[in-house]
Amino acid sequence: MDIQMVNSMDFGEFVDVLGNIIEKCPLIAAAIWSQRPFTDLADLEKHVFDFIEALPQSGKEGILRCHPDLAGRELQQGTLTPESQREQRGAGLSNLGPEERRRLRELNCEYKARFGFPFVIAARLSDKATMMRELERRLHNQPARELRAALAEVRKICHLRLEDILRSPEDPAKL
Amino acid sequence: MDIQMVNSMDFGEFVDVLGNIIEKCPLIAAAIWSQRPFTDLADLEKHVFDFIEALPQSGKEGILRCHPDLAGRELQQGTLTPESQREQRGAGLSNLGPEERRRLRELNCEYKARFGFPFVIAARLSDKATMMRELERRLHNQPARELRAALAEVRKICHLRLEDILRSPEDPAKL
Repeated sequence: MDIQMVNSMDFGEFVDVLGNIIEKCPLIAAAIWSQRPFTDLADLEKHVFDFIEALPQSGKEGILRCHPDLAGRELQQGTLTPESQREQRGAGLSNLGPEERRRLRELNCEYKARFGFPFVIAARLSDKATMMRELERRLHNQPARELRAALAEVRKICHLRLEDILRSPEDPAKL
Repeated sequence: MDIQMVNSMDFGEFVDVLGNIIEKCPLIAAAIWSQRPFTDLADLEKHVFDFIEALPQSGKEGILRCHPDLAGRELQQGTLTPESQREQRGAGLSNLGPEERRRLRELNCEYKARFGFPFVIAARLSDKATMMRELERRLHNQPARELRAALAEVRKICHLRLEDILRSPEDPAKL
């Protein structure tokens, strides 16, 4: 699919195809549809990032709260979005040992209690050992700094998901 | 469930229970969790409405674009959210005659082409004849006025969904 095809979509198709570039926030893709045509991937994602940046702090935190835990209940229950499923599986989170799982649950819990949103990281750019280390490190960040760090990960995830869509040879109807 | 119970939820429970008070926009419930405790339903919904009001026009349109068509593909395919399903069925939209269905499809299509978002109406406060009349009437609105009219319907839908949640005797885990 190329950017011309993306630009030619009506809002229904656009939200079907791009609705999850920000996890569980189709509102954002639906909003930036107003700003098409886009010249390329970088232009499209700039509109997404500008939209997020203009949200109040509660809205930015809200985006993070729509993300699943790493190796959490939804991975166990198979209720992750397809994108998150691929990303978490690819990073090895579906085959943690019992001790790794316990430690991750403990750190996730501590992180959420401290910051009021779940730990978000671009799993495809990482592996389980690195993610665990990052979680331990970021737990010590000041809240304002950690909000910025987490949103930077959201942007990386969005970029990778957009690349997948724009690289796909598929007809949008088949996605 | 009472407002104290709502206030006592962690963000995961809060988004599970209130995530769809604005159709397919869990970001909004997730955002206003930052502003708890709420004194009552009116206070909680005021935070939701203020959040929406502060969005740029593209964001307001984005919310509308996350809504399904009345008697559209998703009702036929059974892929509506549980809330929309109840609302559309309750208003008689699951048993339209072929002529009614054709007319509604035509009007929906015209509406979307004119405004760039789907026709939204609080189906529980209406019936199929009234909805059809309203759709015909609102088609002639100026775009800025129609955006306001549609968002007023979003607020009514949100109010009714919140009432359901706050009236429910259930434990949040069972919802």
